[in-house]
Amino acid sequence: MKKFGIAIHGGAGVMRRKDLTPDKEKKYREGLSRSLMTGYEILEQGGSALDAVEVSVRVLEDHDSFNAGRGAVFNHEGKHEMDASIMDGANQIAGAVCSVHNVRNPVLLAKEIMLHSEHVMLCGDGAEEFARERKLQFEDDEYFFTQHRFDQLQRALGKKQMQLDDGSTKKFGTVGAVALDQSGNLAAATSTGGLTNKRFGRVGDSPIIGAGTYANNQSCAISCTGHGEYFLRIMVAYDIHALMQYKNMKLKEACEYVVMKKLVDIGGEGGLIAIDHLGNIETPFNSDGLYRAKKTSDTELEIDIY
Amino acid sequence: MKKFGIAIHGGAGVMRRKDLTPDKEKKYREGLSRSLMTGYEILEQGGSALDAVEVSVRVLEDHDSFNAGRGAVFNHEGKHEMDASIMDGANQIAGAVCSVHNVRNPVLLAKEIMLHSEHVMLCGDGAEEFARERKLQFEDDEYFFTQHRFDQLQRALGKKQMQLDDGSTKKFGTVGAVALDQSGNLAAATSTGGLTNKRFGRVGDSPIIGAGTYANNQSCAISCTGHGEYFLRIMVAYDIHALMQYKNMKLKEACEYVVMKKLVDIGGEGGLIAIDHLGNIETPFNSDGLYRAKKTSDTELEIDIY
Repeated sequence: MKKFGIAIHGGAGVMRRKDLTPDKEKKYREGLSRSLMTGYEILEQGGSALDAVEVSVRVLEDHDSFNAGRGAVFNHEGKHEMDASIMDGANQIAGAVCSVHNVRNPVLLAKEIMLHSEHVMLCGDGAEEFARERKLQFEDDEYFFTQHRFDQLQRALGKKQMQLDDGSTKKFGTVGAVALDQSGNLAAATSTGGLTNKRFGRVGDSPIIGAGTYANNQSCAISCTGHGEYFLRIMVAYDIHALMQYKNMKLKEACEYVVMKKLVDIGGEGGLIAIDHLGNIETPFNSDGLYRAKKTSDTELEIDIY
Repeated sequence: MKKFGIAIHGGAGVMRRKDLTPDKEKKYREGLSRSLMTGYEILEQGGSALDAVEVSVRVLEDHDSFNAGRGAVFNHEGKHEMDASIMDGANQIAGAVCSVHNVRNPVLLAKEIMLHSEHVMLCGDGAEEFARERKLQFEDDEYFFTQHRFDQLQRALGKKQMQLDDGSTKKFGTVGAVALDQSGNLAAATSTGGLTNKRFGRVGDSPIIGAGTYANNQSCAISCTGHGEYFLRIMVAYDIHALMQYKNMKLKEACEYVVMKKLVDIGGEGGLIAIDHLGNIETPFNSDGLYRAKKTSDTELEIDIY
C-alpha cells in the first residue's frame, strides 16, 4: 500500500499557558483529534485528499474553539466575516471565497466554486448568492455567537485596536488541512474568521491561492496560519513549492527557509503545515506555538500545541 | 546616468481588425502614449517607479477606452465592480483592492491601502469606507457609463453568458504598468473592471499580489492581463520572479516559459509586461494581441497592438 497521511492546524500562536486551563486544552485537543481522524478515515478507505482536507476543515469550522466557521471572531461591526480556500494538487484547480457572512462552512463554498463555477475566487454578497444557488447551509448570527469571542471584541473596541484572534497574546486563528491520498494526490484547504475588530473588508492570506493555500502533486500541499499580511507579500505557500521545484530543496529545507528565515526577516509571525508527495509532514512555526495534529499510514496520531 | 524605463499595457487580446476602425485605433494609441509618457516623465525627473506606475495606470483608468476605472465593463447587475493592486519592489510592500464601486481610481486606493493601512488587501464596502476616510475621489454611475460597454452587456445578457471584455472576440481588459527608476527600484501596478456580465463577486488575478502583480528589486516587476482564473492558479507574476531567483533564468527566458509554455499547457490565454532590474523589457503574450507601449532612457517610445 502506498503511504498516505494528513496534517491539520488550528492556528499559530497560543494562549498564555496560565490561560489555557486543562478544560480548554482538552477541548482544543478533542477538536484537533476529531478533525484529523475524520480526514484520516477518508484516506484509509481510499478516498481523495481533496475530500479529506475539506471534511477535516469542516470539523474545525463546526467546532466553536477555532477561529473559522462557528467559532469565527467578530469584526468591527459585530459580524463574522469569513474567508477560505482549497486546492487540488492533481490538476491545480482551486476555489476561494472572501468576506462571506452566515455561510456555515466556507471551505465547502470554496470547493463548490472550484467544482461548479468557471471561477477561482468569489467575494462578498456575490459569493453568498452563489452559495444559495448551490443550496449550501446558512446559519443565523446566533449560531456564530461565542461568549469568549464577544468578550475579545469588547476588549479590542475598548482599546480601539484591530486585534489578532486573542487579545491576551498573539494568536492567529485559522484552521487548515493538507493530505496525501493513496493515489498519490495532494490537496490543501484553509479557513478563517480573520482578525477580531477587523474593518474595511480586510482580507488576509487564507483565501489567496499561493499565499495561504497551495497544492501540487509535483511537490507538496501547504496550509498557512499567521499574520496574513506578511504571508501575502512573499507568497509563502507557492514559495515552498517553487523552492522544491526550481532549487530541488526537500520539503523540510524549503519550510525552514521560508518560515524561519524569509518570514522572520520581514517580521512575519506564524507557521504552516505541509505534506509532500512522499508523505513527509512538516509543521514549522516561528510563533510561540501552533495547534496541530498529524498522522500517516506509517505513524501514530500526534497532537501538539507548543 | 543609470538606465530607467517603463512599460504599460491596456489589455491582452484584440478587436477583430475589421472592427478596429482608424478612429478607434487612434484613440487607443493616444491613450497608451499619454499614459506611458506621463509615467516616463516622472522617471526622467528622478521620481520613483512606484509613483510612475501609479500615475500611468491612473491615466488609463481615466480614459474611457480601457477596461479599468472610467471605461470599466458592466457586471451582471449593471454596475462597475473594480479590482486593482500595486507593489513596491524595494521592500515588497503591496496594496490591493477588490470589488469596489464608484471609486474613480482603484489603483490609487490600492496605493493608499499599502501606505496608510496595516493591511495588504481590502474588499467591497469596507474598502470603499477606507477610501472615504482617505478622501479619495468617488464618481457617480454616470461617469462610468460608456455606450459600447453598455451594448456589450446587452449582448452578453442576451446570450446569458459571462463575457470577456468584448463580445466580438476574446479581449481581456485590464491595464497595468511596470517601471524601473533611476535609483534602481522596481514597481508594478494593475487595474481592471473584470468581465462583462460577471456575477457572484468574481475576482480575477488583477488584485492578487503574486498572480496579477509582483515587484522585487532582486528580479523584476510584472503586470498581467488575460483569463484571470488561469493566472491565479499558477501564480504567474511570482513564478517569473521565482524562475529568475531560483533557477537563474533571464527575464526573457522566464517570461517565455511561463506565458508560452505553462499558461498555454493549461489553456490560459493572455500576456504580461515585465521589466527587470537592468531595464530589460519583455511583453510576451499568447493571445492575438496585447495593447502595449514601452520606453527606456536608451530607447524610443514604441506602441504596439498586434
